[in-house]
Amino acid sequence: MFTSINKLPNPLPESDEPNPKAAQALQEGLGGQFGEMRTMMQYLFQNINFRGDAKPYQDLLRSIATEEMGHVELISNTINVLLEGSTTQADPNKLPLAVALESPNIHHFLVAGQSCRPVDAAGNPWSATYVYDSGNLVLNMLYNLILEATGRLQKCRLYEMSDNKAYRATVSYLIVRDLAHEKVFAKALETLGVDWNKTLPVPKVDTSKMPEVRELEELNLHNQQWTFTEEQSGLSLIFSGESPFKDGQVETLDGLPKGAAIPNLPEAPQEFSPGLDKELKSKFQNLMKST
Amino acid sequence: MFTSINKLPNPLPESDEPNPKAAQALQEGLGGQFGEMRTMMQYLFQNINFRGDAKPYQDLLRSIATEEMGHVELISNTINVLLEGSTTQADPNKLPLAVALESPNIHHFLVAGQSCRPVDAAGNPWSATYVYDSGNLVLNMLYNLILEATGRLQKCRLYEMSDNKAYRATVSYLIVRDLAHEKVFAKALETLGVDWNKTLPVPKVDTSKMPEVRELEELNLHNQQWTFTEEQSGLSLIFSGESPFKDGQVETLDGLPKGAAIPNLPEAPQEFSPGLDKELKSKFQNLMKST
Amino acid sequence: MFTSINKLPNPLPESDEPNPKAAQALQEGLGGQFGEMRTMMQYLFQNINFRGDAKPYQDLLRSIATEEMGHVELISNTINVLLEGSTTQADPNKLPLAVALESPNIHHFLVAGQSCRPVDAAGNPWSATYVYDSGNLVLNMLYNLILEATGRLQKCRLYEMSDNKAYRATVSYLIVRDLAHEKVFAKALETLGVDWNKTLPVPKVDTSKMPEVRELEELNLHNQQWTFTEEQSGLSLIFSGESPFKDGQVETLDGLPKGAAIPNLPEAPQEFSPGLDKELKSKFQNLMKST
Amino acid sequence: MFTSINKLPNPLPESDEPNPKAAQALQEGLGGQFGEMRTMMQYLFQNINFRGDAKPYQDLLRSIATEEMGHVELISNTINVLLEGSTTQADPNKLPLAVALESPNIHHFLVAGQSCRPVDAAGNPWSATYVYDSGNLVLNMLYNLILEATGRLQKCRLYEMSDNKAYRATVSYLIVRDLAHEKVFAKALETLGVDWNKTLPVPKVDTSKMPEVRELEELNLHNQQWTFTEEQSGLSLIFSGESPFKDGQVETLDGLPKGAAIPNLPEAPQEFSPGLDKELKSKFQNLMKST
Amino acid sequence: MFTSINKLPNPLPESDEPNPKAAQALQEGLGGQFGEMRTMMQYLFQNINFRGDAKPYQDLLRSIATEEMGHVELISNTINVLLEGSTTQADPNKLPLAVALESPNIHHFLVAGQSCRPVDAAGNPWSATYVYDSGNLVLNMLYNLILEATGRLQKCRLYEMSDNKAYRATVSYLIVRDLAHEKVFAKALETLGVDWNKTLPVPKVDTSKMPEVRELEELNLHNQQWTFTEEQSGLSLIFSGESPFKDGQVETLDGLPKGAAIPNLPEAPQEFSPGLDKELKSKFQNLMKST
Amino acid sequence: MFTSINKLPNPLPESDEPNPKAAQALQEGLGGQFGEMRTMMQYLFQNINFRGDAKPYQDLLRSIATEEMGHVELISNTINVLLEGSTTQADPNKLPLAVALESPNIHHFLVAGQSCRPVDAAGNPWSATYVYDSGNLVLNMLYNLILEATGRLQKCRLYEMSDNKAYRATVSYLIVRDLAHEKVFAKALETLGVDWNKTLPVPKVDTSKMPEVRELEELNLHNQQWTFTEEQSGLSLIFSGESPFKDGQVETLDGLPKGAAIPNLPEAPQEFSPGLDKELKSKFQNLMKST
Repeated sequence: MFTSINKLPNPLPESDEPNPKAAQALQEGLGGQFGEMRTMMQYLFQNINFRGDAKPYQDLLRSIATEEMGHVELISNTINVLLEGSTTQADPNKLPLAVALESPNIHHFLVAGQSCRPVDAAGNPWSATYVYDSGNLVLNMLYNLILEATGRLQKCRLYEMSDNKAYRATVSYLIVRDLAHEKVFAKALETLGVDWNKTLPVPKVDTSKMPEVRELEELNLHNQQWTFTEEQSGLSLIFSGESPFKDGQVETLDGLPKGAAIPNLPEAPQEFSPGLDKELKSKFQNLMKST
Repeated sequence: MFTSINKLPNPLPESDEPNPKAAQALQEGLGGQFGEMRTMMQYLFQNINFRGDAKPYQDLLRSIATEEMGHVELISNTINVLLEGSTTQADPNKLPLAVALESPNIHHFLVAGQSCRPVDAAGNPWSATYVYDSGNLVLNMLYNLILEATGRLQKCRLYEMSDNKAYRATVSYLIVRDLAHEKVFAKALETLGVDWNKTLPVPKVDTSKMPEVRELEELNLHNQQWTFTEEQSGLSLIFSGESPFKDGQVETLDGLPKGAAIPNLPEAPQEFSPGLDKELKSKFQNLMKST
Repeated sequence: MFTSINKLPNPLPESDEPNPKAAQALQEGLGGQFGEMRTMMQYLFQNINFRGDAKPYQDLLRSIATEEMGHVELISNTINVLLEGSTTQADPNKLPLAVALESPNIHHFLVAGQSCRPVDAAGNPWSATYVYDSGNLVLNMLYNLILEATGRLQKCRLYEMSDNKAYRATVSYLIVRDLAHEKVFAKALETLGVDWNKTLPVPKVDTSKMPEVRELEELNLHNQQWTFTEEQSGLSLIFSGESPFKDGQVETLDGLPKGAAIPNLPEAPQEFSPGLDKELKSKFQNLMKST
Repeated sequence: MFTSINKLPNPLPESDEPNPKAAQALQEGLGGQFGEMRTMMQYLFQNINFRGDAKPYQDLLRSIATEEMGHVELISNTINVLLEGSTTQADPNKLPLAVALESPNIHHFLVAGQSCRPVDAAGNPWSATYVYDSGNLVLNMLYNLILEATGRLQKCRLYEMSDNKAYRATVSYLIVRDLAHEKVFAKALETLGVDWNKTLPVPKVDTSKMPEVRELEELNLHNQQWTFTEEQSGLSLIFSGESPFKDGQVETLDGLPKGAAIPNLPEAPQEFSPGLDKELKSKFQNLMKST
Repeated sequence: MFTSINKLPNPLPESDEPNPKAAQALQEGLGGQFGEMRTMMQYLFQNINFRGDAKPYQDLLRSIATEEMGHVELISNTINVLLEGSTTQADPNKLPLAVALESPNIHHFLVAGQSCRPVDAAGNPWSATYVYDSGNLVLNMLYNLILEATGRLQKCRLYEMSDNKAYRATVSYLIVRDLAHEKVFAKALETLGVDWNKTLPVPKVDTSKMPEVRELEELNLHNQQWTFTEEQSGLSLIFSGESPFKDGQVETLDGLPKGAAIPNLPEAPQEFSPGLDKELKSKFQNLMKST
Repeated sequence: MFTSINKLPNPLPESDEPNPKAAQALQEGLGGQFGEMRTMMQYLFQNINFRGDAKPYQDLLRSIATEEMGHVELISNTINVLLEGSTTQADPNKLPLAVALESPNIHHFLVAGQSCRPVDAAGNPWSATYVYDSGNLVLNMLYNLILEATGRLQKCRLYEMSDNKAYRATVSYLIVRDLAHEKVFAKALETLGVDWNKTLPVPKVDTSKMPEVRELEELNLHNQQWTFTEEQSGLSLIFSGESPFKDGQVETLDGLPKGAAIPNLPEAPQEFSPGLDKELKSKFQNLMKST
């Protein structure tokens, strides 16, 4: 089971201006083959189907699976923030939703009520065929390492596509967290004997040119992994000591990050969302008072 | 964000005998169009994309989304328990995995290591095209009601396909919880004005002929909804008072059910799962001692 | 069986100017998850698989399924009209099909001969996974209600994306007819006991700001349902009397609307469509004379 | 537009015994890549997107598209008849739906209420990617010829898989009608210049060994094509005179076949289909009396 | 088995300017329903599954299957050449990958490292559902004829979408080779009895207005078919003598074309491709010296 | 470009008895997510899209891509051999194709003419979404290593599902070759710095219990890699010296294996394959004589 904390893992600034194209690019991180829906589901399935008594690896999978649920929330909210205002701040001489015809994902406006969708940046719906779970521990860890590295590679590419503030904040946070996860899986393989030497991480990035990323690294976020549970976890048996990339010390932290507020999305009458008229609103208000 | 509790929502007895066909039937409840992966994702997206200030409905979505994560775990573990033993308890004159050629989902044995897959009972992979989120509150609540009712309809059909103990335990629990969820969404629509009269619930089932279901109803599990959070939730504003089906009182409970142990899956050497040889095992054991 | 009438249900003006982007947006109404191909197929399957003696509901499904076949034609023709001229009216200094590289659906020009395709507005092909048929009467009627309401919601959003004349004519007609269908299914559920009070219709729209829609409402098209057959139909048992939305009287009409001409598409030599050279044309002309 | 006639194109005997495996095999003819849903949709799209003034070919497409709608009904009803009784005639010592675990398509019982689904014989959902419409007249006619020939090839294979009476009746009817359609498209190409010599039809079948097929050929059903409209049609300009396969005379008939009764499916309480309890039934009965 | 020749079938000029839109249009020829991946796979499967002793037709399939492998290479390289420079030649005031947000296929930049993908021009991944193999010789040959004709039709449309030099070079080569293949399959059917008269080829194109195509025809490339093997092939039994389109003589050539250099793609550090840092490069350089 | 050699890489004995279930299991190795179509396409795309001057790795990809083409042929032919006789050797009192209703993939008989299909063992068509090509050299090599290891894991599972002679011959050959490929990619990563220690290979298999595998290992087939070209290849720079798994010496061989005969499939008149009647056969025979 899981319980919910009504917070995002990282603060999300308002978008400096609406940007449906950047929003659509970010969809890759949500519903792409190497996005957060996939990491969440892949680790969850590997955790559930785990066999044998090497439980610290099972705990490790559970912790990261749980963190990824929060990443799904973070990136979804970022997409929404990037879409916000794109129809209302438009030229008043234009039709309210005319912007939809110029956007790379018309479904943001036509199917959803100006919000994110479980698809990738090219519009392909997320598919469970992405989930890899071979039952073999070494293979699963190796694949997860690649999954994180590929996710981070794509986010480094995303970083260079737009400098919108909200976009950059989330992309940078995920670059840092993907690096931490890459270390977790690399470390797990190190405990089984692999010496990565200088091959990892991939991609090799000079974060001195990525100020938003560098700032988060200064908080040591790229070397830490929370357990995302109040229970005992074997994660710390694996994730401690020298980094598998020979760049410092890694550490396991109990629990989860402090978190930041989830943005409130205003009504979007042009989208009929939530679409409550005066009568339905008054019903709802009576309900609120009824306590 | 979410945190993890290492428990299942309901106790899971061992399977009285391995049953790959029943396991495959249960896949509908996991990866089917009306299964738990879908409810979990649909409510999560509706929660994230919620607009306006009718927050109790947003809280309601978050609570049930979180519960569904635990249902994904419950049904996955049940499939695994049904598969367990199917290869090792087989005729010693037969090949270890010969049973795979007689099973409705050869991928259980060939792709996964004798465990569940994110597919439906006909083998179709789960697809995010299933997720419905229109942005419109009334439509979303109506759809969610149908989603739960259809899920329960399918589980009532599943109930009559096998009487395996582990299978029945989980199917029955989900029949009861789907009914509770059906009530939550029916009640939400009632707060907005709908009078369901005698049309709901669907399906109409005489649980006196379903002893495992009846037993759970005696615990009142079909009238309760947990918040699945330690925080305040507006859920209780909606889900309290008379049942929308006129069959008693419903209630909101803070937190989550007590939970039950998650089964341990033994090694499956015939599947190379987890596939650690003596040397890798000894590495792992050193790790365990290192604490 | 079905027979064909060589007419569209509603007149289709010429497009005031070619508009491939509006054409692509309209594809959602043709091949989208809540478009006309889906309604047509869903009602057809529910009609065929109907069980028991509540035949008026079966008749109802058949009538609307048949109407939807005509809607598929109407919206397809509208897309074609919107595409017409987009290559020939282009800048003579440009290549004939250069416009294809700037259009949201290059397949309109590259795969089809400048005409519609069975896909949605994001380019996803229509899939039979969309078809819902649970076998349960109440669930089917509820789902159909949502299907019509969601279709209308999307068309109301489409309305605000372009004011092209041909586009608006068809979008408006479908907004009105979807409302009629929403009423049919709401009424069907009312006959079984549901009181919708003020929750429906969704979306709630002020058609005084949608002149093309208002005009059609003045013909009472939003309160009428044809049987689309010359035979007896039980539809009128269900669809008569007060509107389930308490906004007037609804009525069942025998037969079908008068209809309007289907546009003729000219040859498109730049598309090799139909691609008959002089010799093949002369063969065809001889054929015509042969009568 | 289209209108509905509440009849099947060919009489459908009751199944001599329930046969879920034969039912699933028949799904290929319904939802397969070369099945009736595809022919119906392909010809409908080609008809709508037709360019230029060679209208008899457009009429031809419309007539066959309309006939295919009735074939969808015929084959769907046949699948239903083959499924009927499979659960109720089962061993009373077994669970009501236990047969579902032994059937090739569990969805017939679990998702639908013991009825057909828009999928092929391997369970793949029908997809609009199947629809071919190039805009080019010669290519479209050639493809349609192959489509009919491949459909007939598959039906000839289906014929040899089971001798169930209802199954054979429909398979045989479709073998004959597919041959007629193969002739229509071959003839259309002949009018443009192709001489098929002895290459067609494919497959070459000795129907003296297929008594049910032979019987229908004796009615000349393999040489006739109805217009499926009460209006003028150019079809007869193309489809008349000597068969393109040099095996007799072909002819165009106005209107449509006389038709036969559509079977009534009884209630299936084990499937909760239609699932009306006493109260809902009484509501429905009052409705019936209200006239 | 197959062996590799490190050459392209036709010379590939550098692109005169980067053109991501033309690159994406070309994807149809690579991963589209009628593109080179499909022809290659369809003929390979038909070759492998061939039954009976009409071996020249089997040889024919093998030769063209092998040629198509080289076409996959040619068109992939052309897409890469069209993408090359699109990020580096961009405005230095812009972000390195900002062009990705304006491109029709963001995956070219975000998923691949600025290179081609196995998808069509609308972004749909190639699917093996495209592969047609009925087992029937006449049907297979007929379908292959349509496949080539449709491929050529689409390439003729592509020709008119851009005049980029690299784009035109490859499109023109494929127009000519598709015509040759169309002749091969038409000829194969002629050997079995069909007389095509003037219906073929489709499309009918005046290549005097397509100088790049005309130039290749002057080399007689539209009348020749290589065997793509050093072994004996029955191809020449079929493909010799008068063209089935009555436009000259066709001929079978042993072996394969002379070929042209495959372009070298430079490093793309903005894409982390290949992403070797100094240390990894020095390892690689040591490796090179080690010989 | 490629050229064809009309041989299989390994001898293929006749199947000791027809086995449609084993045939369908083998489909995973052909059209599965980790099957030969995927390895072939993944390496081909990575080869084409290769950037920079580390050409030996590009050569390596080309060699293995080319070998995989032959594996596609080998496994396809094996499936065909397993299907052969399943209909003709059946009970003469049964219908010719009745076996199709009892087979896990009815499409083998209904769609193909008793032969293989481009699908996996659960019937899912192969999809290009499987192809991984990140542009990053280290990631690509790591992924390819997993791809081979997972393919071998699945083949080791397949080994234990049936002991049919033809099945075992091919499964064993692929187990050995996948191990060789796993070594190639592991070695490639070793040249960049990774020390695998005892973590590889996965799976760890005791081949003394797999006699067919052991026999091939005695030929050293698990330590060799052919270049599959007559040209220079940089492969030997990478693949030579000590095995990355510390189990001996690896070596690069020029050219390709000697190869073995491809089986001839007889006519299958019950499948209308190839479906030539007396007249068409005589046309073909005249053609043969014409030389």
